[in-house]
Amino acid sequence: MSLSFDVIAETAAGGRRAQLHLPHRTVQTPVFMPVGTAGSVKAVPQNVLEELGAEIILGNTYHLYLRPGHEAIARMGGLHKFISWPRAMLTDSGGFQVFSLAKLRKVTDDGVKFRSHLDGSSHFFSPEHSMDVQIALGADIAMAFDECTEYPAERRRAEESLRLTMAWAERSLTHHRENRHKTPWFDANTGRRQNLFGIVQGGMYTDLRKQCAERLVAMDFDGYAIGGLSVGEPRELTLEMIQEVLPLLPKDKPRYVMGVGYPDEIEQYAKLGVDMMDCVLPTRAARHALLFTSEGRVNIKNKQYAEDQGPVDPNCDCPVCQRYTRAYLRHLMQAGEPLAATLNSIHNLAYYLNIMKRVRAGMEAGSAAETV
Amino acid sequence: MSLSFDVIAETAAGGRRAQLHLPHRTVQTPVFMPVGTAGSVKAVPQNVLEELGAEIILGNTYHLYLRPGHEAIARMGGLHKFISWPRAMLTDSGGFQVFSLAKLRKVTDDGVKFRSHLDGSSHFFSPEHSMDVQIALGADIAMAFDECTEYPAERRRAEESLRLTMAWAERSLTHHRENRHKTPWFDANTGRRQNLFGIVQGGMYTDLRKQCAERLVAMDFDGYAIGGLSVGEPRELTLEMIQEVLPLLPKDKPRYVMGVGYPDEIEQYAKLGVDMMDCVLPTRAARHALLFTSEGRVNIKNKQYAEDQGPVDPNCDCPVCQRYTRAYLRHLMQAGEPLAATLNSIHNLAYYLNIMKRVRAGMEAGSAAETV
Repeated sequence: MSLSFDVIAETAAGGRRAQLHLPHRTVQTPVFMPVGTAGSVKAVPQNVLEELGAEIILGNTYHLYLRPGHEAIARMGGLHKFISWPRAMLTDSGGFQVFSLAKLRKVTDDGVKFRSHLDGSSHFFSPEHSMDVQIALGADIAMAFDECTEYPAERRRAEESLRLTMAWAERSLTHHRENRHKTPWFDANTGRRQNLFGIVQGGMYTDLRKQCAERLVAMDFDGYAIGGLSVGEPRELTLEMIQEVLPLLPKDKPRYVMGVGYPDEIEQYAKLGVDMMDCVLPTRAARHALLFTSEGRVNIKNKQYAEDQGPVDPNCDCPVCQRYTRAYLRHLMQAGEPLAATLNSIHNLAYYLNIMKRVRAGMEAGSAAETV
Repeated sequence: MSLSFDVIAETAAGGRRAQLHLPHRTVQTPVFMPVGTAGSVKAVPQNVLEELGAEIILGNTYHLYLRPGHEAIARMGGLHKFISWPRAMLTDSGGFQVFSLAKLRKVTDDGVKFRSHLDGSSHFFSPEHSMDVQIALGADIAMAFDECTEYPAERRRAEESLRLTMAWAERSLTHHRENRHKTPWFDANTGRRQNLFGIVQGGMYTDLRKQCAERLVAMDFDGYAIGGLSVGEPRELTLEMIQEVLPLLPKDKPRYVMGVGYPDEIEQYAKLGVDMMDCVLPTRAARHALLFTSEGRVNIKNKQYAEDQGPVDPNCDCPVCQRYTRAYLRHLMQAGEPLAATLNSIHNLAYYLNIMKRVRAGMEAGSAAETV
């Protein structure tokens, strides 16, 4: 048995309140997944993530492959054990970072040759290699190796990129099926195994997106992601692509939109039927003093907060809003104190996780109302 | 009523197990006080400090005066409230930082003119001004404004420095007595007020130390510190100065050695009768990968820990040793993850606080054994 996805309630708009049963955790969806790039959600200890209610976090294959190395992590029992995170995890394929961070890339049908952004050393990622790395890391969900089409992209370029992504999806799936028993926690008796998601690409061309979605669905992945969004396109286009693709994906499997977004975006997409989202925004913005609140965005470095005795967000129940003032958080930023990144990140993550909590509660209440 | 100091047990070596009743907390001594320079014990959230059992922390007057400013902190209700630390606090006089960090100092009998290390702006600290700043911050304990004699110092220089320190001690005491009712939490009915400690200087000249101690004791401070140690002198000299000065200080008041030290030092001095110590070492070393353990020092960046599945210290009950491996902590340092500073600091602080806990328990047990 791979994952199972039990829909508890559906809304007229297509939103779904579900339980996603993964090998290490039953995750309540729609869910926001904090990003733990190099094996750490930046500046936030694991026990705090648990206290905030995070049920699944991401690890980045490219970063962990380079440092400390997937083989070392496998020898230590896999990524869950290495970082001491007992709940669910998802790894990306490494493709996005190879294309955005690595140097001197050379792409062929076979895969991508690149140099590490850390030390310039040479490496090669193919669909097969990405699967081997992700199996060694042993997250609950692995992602097919794809090429994230840049924005803007000419139709010709998007077509060529899509051809590659679809060939690589097939090879990812084949190689993963043959090797997925190699995660440290695989169990043949219960069928407990790593899941693999396919990624819908196609740039901003709806017919290419459709073609990709249909081909991937025919391949029968454990779940489906929509990739190549939030890459610089206007938000209406992001929404259009999501709305085009969602109905093409199987209703009984989780749908994941990668790398989005702002608070209002994740709420909007969840209500349209997106089950999973991840984004570095809450933690990255936090480190740059940008805090999300129920009253709008707060740049906590602003002088206006110098003696502000209120919490960051009067409507937030997070441990930061319960204990510290805006004035103190501003001071920590001004003084360059490392605690600033930690407290700001905790608040922003709580804000994101609470949005999803409210969306889930709303779906349950809506469903209950209909039943009455 | 100012502080009260109740000795529970004494050892043959002069060690004392006591309760130090301060306005915001009854502190169990001997005590180690984590340093919260700019209103934060670097990289460690306040609730974690509480969980580790820290009962009193330091704030640095020089840093807080420059940023965010003592007047702003006073308007916000004082330092306890500003940083959300309900337990006891102590502020230094600012003298040490003026002499070590500030630029273009000019010392006269009146005070010290200096330029900020942050922006080069001009400032003036006198004993009276240091008292005003510390009263505005409102810690449980303030320190007299002194000149920390550098090491090595010629006798002539040490004498001159001591003359200044003693004149400033007198002025500090006078100004503090006249203004200590201005802390936000002063209570005339109960006598709840800020305490002021005198600081014994005198370089490495025992007769100067003695002369200083006697003069300060005659002035009747609420407690006494030995300053000007751990400034580069050999450790035997540090010990000699402590051993010379301790017997000259009143038995019924707390004795504080400033700015020490390594784990074995704080244990040694506590057993000789030092009641309070503070040091940036546990947190500063942590940020540079140096961890203190029951099995010796660990440079967690060393390659030998790359796949070490054990905790930092197998004999440590801190939350870091209970959850994370040496391999993971090494990885966090290697990857430049901000979590490294947090986890390393938590362990080192726990290690220091646990040393004092054991010393206190040993004194209690010794006393109990004698009673039997």
